[in-house]
Amino acid sequence: MTMKRKKISVIGSGFTGATTAFLLAQKELGDVVLVDIPQMENPAKGKALDMLEAAPVQGFDANITGTSNYEDTKDSDIVIITAGIARKPGMSRDDLVQTNQKVMKIVTAEIIKHSPNTIILVLTNPVDAMSYTVYKESGFPKERVIGQSGVLDSARFRTFVAQELNLSVKDITGFVLGGHGDDMVPLVRYSYAGGIPLETLISKERLAEIVERTRKGGAEIVNLLGNGSAYYAPAASLVEMAEAILKDQRRVLPTIAYLEGEYGLEGIYLGVPTILGAGGIEKIFELDLTEAEKAELDKSAESVRNVLKILA
Amino acid sequence: MTMKRKKISVIGSGFTGATTAFLLAQKELGDVVLVDIPQMENPAKGKALDMLEAAPVQGFDANITGTSNYEDTKDSDIVIITAGIARKPGMSRDDLVQTNQKVMKIVTAEIIKHSPNTIILVLTNPVDAMSYTVYKESGFPKERVIGQSGVLDSARFRTFVAQELNLSVKDITGFVLGGHGDDMVPLVRYSYAGGIPLETLISKERLAEIVERTRKGGAEIVNLLGNGSAYYAPAASLVEMAEAILKDQRRVLPTIAYLEGEYGLEGIYLGVPTILGAGGIEKIFELDLTEAEKAELDKSAESVRNVLKILA
Amino acid sequence: MTMKRKKISVIGSGFTGATTAFLLAQKELGDVVLVDIPQMENPAKGKALDMLEAAPVQGFDANITGTSNYEDTKDSDIVIITAGIARKPGMSRDDLVQTNQKVMKIVTAEIIKHSPNTIILVLTNPVDAMSYTVYKESGFPKERVIGQSGVLDSARFRTFVAQELNLSVKDITGFVLGGHGDDMVPLVRYSYAGGIPLETLISKERLAEIVERTRKGGAEIVNLLGNGSAYYAPAASLVEMAEAILKDQRRVLPTIAYLEGEYGLEGIYLGVPTILGAGGIEKIFELDLTEAEKAELDKSAESVRNVLKILA
Amino acid sequence: MTMKRKKISVIGSGFTGATTAFLLAQKELGDVVLVDIPQMENPAKGKALDMLEAAPVQGFDANITGTSNYEDTKDSDIVIITAGIARKPGMSRDDLVQTNQKVMKIVTAEIIKHSPNTIILVLTNPVDAMSYTVYKESGFPKERVIGQSGVLDSARFRTFVAQELNLSVKDITGFVLGGHGDDMVPLVRYSYAGGIPLETLISKERLAEIVERTRKGGAEIVNLLGNGSAYYAPAASLVEMAEAILKDQRRVLPTIAYLEGEYGLEGIYLGVPTILGAGGIEKIFELDLTEAEKAELDKSAESVRNVLKILA
Repeated sequence: MTMKRKKISVIGSGFTGATTAFLLAQKELGDVVLVDIPQMENPAKGKALDMLEAAPVQGFDANITGTSNYEDTKDSDIVIITAGIARKPGMSRDDLVQTNQKVMKIVTAEIIKHSPNTIILVLTNPVDAMSYTVYKESGFPKERVIGQSGVLDSARFRTFVAQELNLSVKDITGFVLGGHGDDMVPLVRYSYAGGIPLETLISKERLAEIVERTRKGGAEIVNLLGNGSAYYAPAASLVEMAEAILKDQRRVLPTIAYLEGEYGLEGIYLGVPTILGAGGIEKIFELDLTEAEKAELDKSAESVRNVLKILA
Repeated sequence: MTMKRKKISVIGSGFTGATTAFLLAQKELGDVVLVDIPQMENPAKGKALDMLEAAPVQGFDANITGTSNYEDTKDSDIVIITAGIARKPGMSRDDLVQTNQKVMKIVTAEIIKHSPNTIILVLTNPVDAMSYTVYKESGFPKERVIGQSGVLDSARFRTFVAQELNLSVKDITGFVLGGHGDDMVPLVRYSYAGGIPLETLISKERLAEIVERTRKGGAEIVNLLGNGSAYYAPAASLVEMAEAILKDQRRVLPTIAYLEGEYGLEGIYLGVPTILGAGGIEKIFELDLTEAEKAELDKSAESVRNVLKILA
Repeated sequence: MTMKRKKISVIGSGFTGATTAFLLAQKELGDVVLVDIPQMENPAKGKALDMLEAAPVQGFDANITGTSNYEDTKDSDIVIITAGIARKPGMSRDDLVQTNQKVMKIVTAEIIKHSPNTIILVLTNPVDAMSYTVYKESGFPKERVIGQSGVLDSARFRTFVAQELNLSVKDITGFVLGGHGDDMVPLVRYSYAGGIPLETLISKERLAEIVERTRKGGAEIVNLLGNGSAYYAPAASLVEMAEAILKDQRRVLPTIAYLEGEYGLEGIYLGVPTILGAGGIEKIFELDLTEAEKAELDKSAESVRNVLKILA
Repeated sequence: MTMKRKKISVIGSGFTGATTAFLLAQKELGDVVLVDIPQMENPAKGKALDMLEAAPVQGFDANITGTSNYEDTKDSDIVIITAGIARKPGMSRDDLVQTNQKVMKIVTAEIIKHSPNTIILVLTNPVDAMSYTVYKESGFPKERVIGQSGVLDSARFRTFVAQELNLSVKDITGFVLGGHGDDMVPLVRYSYAGGIPLETLISKERLAEIVERTRKGGAEIVNLLGNGSAYYAPAASLVEMAEAILKDQRRVLPTIAYLEGEYGLEGIYLGVPTILGAGGIEKIFELDLTEAEKAELDKSAESVRNVLKILA
């Protein structure tokens, strides 16, 4: 019966981490600790202070602090990992994977030391492999290590559909399985406008284009920005997942979950429809897939396994 | 009796401009057009798209578009100017003023061509001189050209007071007059915690420190970030002003207003308490000042006049 | 380019009308005029004042006034009709229909006199016949006279499904056609939990029970209250429809619309999926129905026609 | 580190209790249990269900249940008492006090049996004496038994001031001490519009009228309604207090608190400025009063003592 505020730590104070911290505070989901490496501690503190100074105007009560000291994350209810590097021109995929794997190991060791009962959300790419790494390093039960990609991918899909039909985004639902980006398996037949199947509202060809645009959605932003990648929608996606857990909402959201036989897959993290509540992932839904969908999902799983092989 | 959505154009797609656009859309205050120069059109488009992709998750209906074409701003209800350069090491104040003056002239010409009846909010520094420039260039009545600084300055003051007393920011009110930053004239005796005068809750010395920290509030963030300046709280401040106008709330907010005799000052833009409503600045409050406060305000006005002299 | 606040008039200051007024104000959708007959003017004023006194605490800026003078509704953007009597024990259906028809005629004459360009939402039962009456009396184009029932019916359905599955209501979508209550035609196959068809999550028998409970949803509340009928969910439903129009959201919502050939039906008001935006009903979706569904819809239409025959 | 939802029990399912339950759920502050006597259990269930059916439309996740069984209130984080009778024509004050005292005794015994660590908010009138009764009966530490009246009284004052000045309610602050209604001691000199003292904006005579109207604010609504009393603003006031506690906001709010020497008063509950946070009343502010104000406060205290004498 304590009224103590919830505590959420965000690892990585780049654009996504910072925006995540701001959206969490705006919703008064708890006090937020924005963590970065010692060289980035001052920028993290600066961003945290700037956000805090928006509180009187936006009308939210939540503390936001920047730090490089993991002791400040002690007893976090949720920890969100956004740390890691983005793939740069000329960098091999193996380099990216192995560098971020190292980051995950360091970060996870610190997290579990200070918050052994927390729930961890992972955004760092390649998110399937990084969720796997955090899961293994933490020794946490699988329901407490969760990757993000499906909320973002379906948000992009929903945005494009809303534009296509000139309808409110509030009434468009979308559904994706599998990995992030190119490996995404969109279940178009489970996607609707106000409950009406999209397939009856948009031509097959146009839907295929929208799916393809969704798959390349991250790259589209990268190309436009020229220097950097998306952070508003990724941050919003993380916050929706965190809110579902913190408020025990039992939302039905696609997340990167550890599979132990579901969909005939074993021992990998992959995007599937789940229930998110107080306990983290409280259930994985197994949908009936068509043969074509199952084939796509298997391809996506294969792709994840190939990345796992690179892990040191 | 049209239900047409309101339209808000934000000039400058840097961090403050982009964050302003996002917060406007989040509140469903209208559709947002994010404008930048042709070389920055793609990043503006990229940020706009990223924000739009957050809409299905955050649950807001508002269009956000990036552009370098001012025709897209046609018939804006409000235009917010965040464009301009920040002072860089080694740059003289005169260079800063004259460069941003040029930007204001170009931007204002475009704004009034496409939205002759709009209301303009100015953030670009030095904000007193830039508001003056936009006012003169636009030929608009004074109530429709408004500078921002007091909402932000008092937000910082309120944040520091809330931390000092460990109280909700919701119950702290603050009050500033005069220019932005060093020229700020804080009216501490008009500042309260839940209606209780701060002077009875915080020692004189500590209050003086808080006032000083507020004055240097922008620099504190700049120093922490290392590379860049505050944007969350500035954006939130602009949005509060825009909301007051768009919803005709008649809020009592400190704004940079054109003075014609108020406080014994004439022909300059300076921070004073005003009513913001559908018509822009609907009233300027003239407070009784102590001699010390009046002296400080005069000094602030002098400071503004000195900048005005630099204008080309 | 006026920032004038929107104006919404609510006819009938009973529980549903009053709750509707409060929810509209809470969302700052505009200023609200709560209208009742002269004998009820004081209670309407009392409720309006009580709501207004909640504004400083809840933090909304909206005026709410009670009146019996329709001149106060002048130039309303939307008018919501909740006036009329409820069926009392011993009252024949014909009496109910004819009494409320008289109310609609009086109210409509006043509305169109003072707000000839407004959009009218009708809640009064039997809502299909009352929407028809208002449509005929007003001489308005059909897209500007809209009945409410599907938003409420599907809200009840969604509530029961969320309870059954112990999931967030946010992820349950439901879909109904046809009349209100017993005549409701639920399209269960167009209803989902997080996009997953309900038919795969809930047994056929249990779904049938939930559908039946939804059909009797109004009566369930009436029986529990003992004295009165539901008003929270009906008010929320009206507000969602009003918001879609006032903010031009182009929501996909089931509404009671005038049919001219859609679904093979002509010259009656019936519940169908529509787009609600600035223009009122901007489109009616025609779904492919199974034979059984079409039969149910025809029965529902027949039921509506029987009520229309009672109209004086 | 449990994410279990907060639990709030509302005793009394009349208009104020029901509206309080709805506003708590709307804000997703926790799950709500609406309690009434066995004869009113069905209406309580009916209201709870109606509210719940508004959830899919308003978009909140919170359970609301009606009951007459106090076991359902087990382990409530907060309990709000709205139960009791209102004074009817011909009823003596003594009858009112003694009847509601009995209600408080019964209710308190049940509350402490099932939620020994909860915080109790009291609305039932006469609120000073009823808070005292609950305090004594519960054996709780004084900071966990809190009466409501100042939030409502100042909300009314702020509403009237906002109307007088035609300003946003968001910028009006008000301040009251002492008892509810006639015994209210308004500290006008601590009341502001955007920080500007009201005494400089409104004439002394007009302010006196506004104060008087505030004192009679409850009666004004009663007279208009004809049959019943205010419930929107009282409910909103209770919810603001509950939110401050549940989110540990440390709000500065006027509450009915147990005095042990503050303001020279001992052993009574009276309205004073306090800090509300996770622990309930975390501090009482002692303001410097003028002699006139002190005299008014003493008179208010005397009035409370006279009611306490009636207690059985």
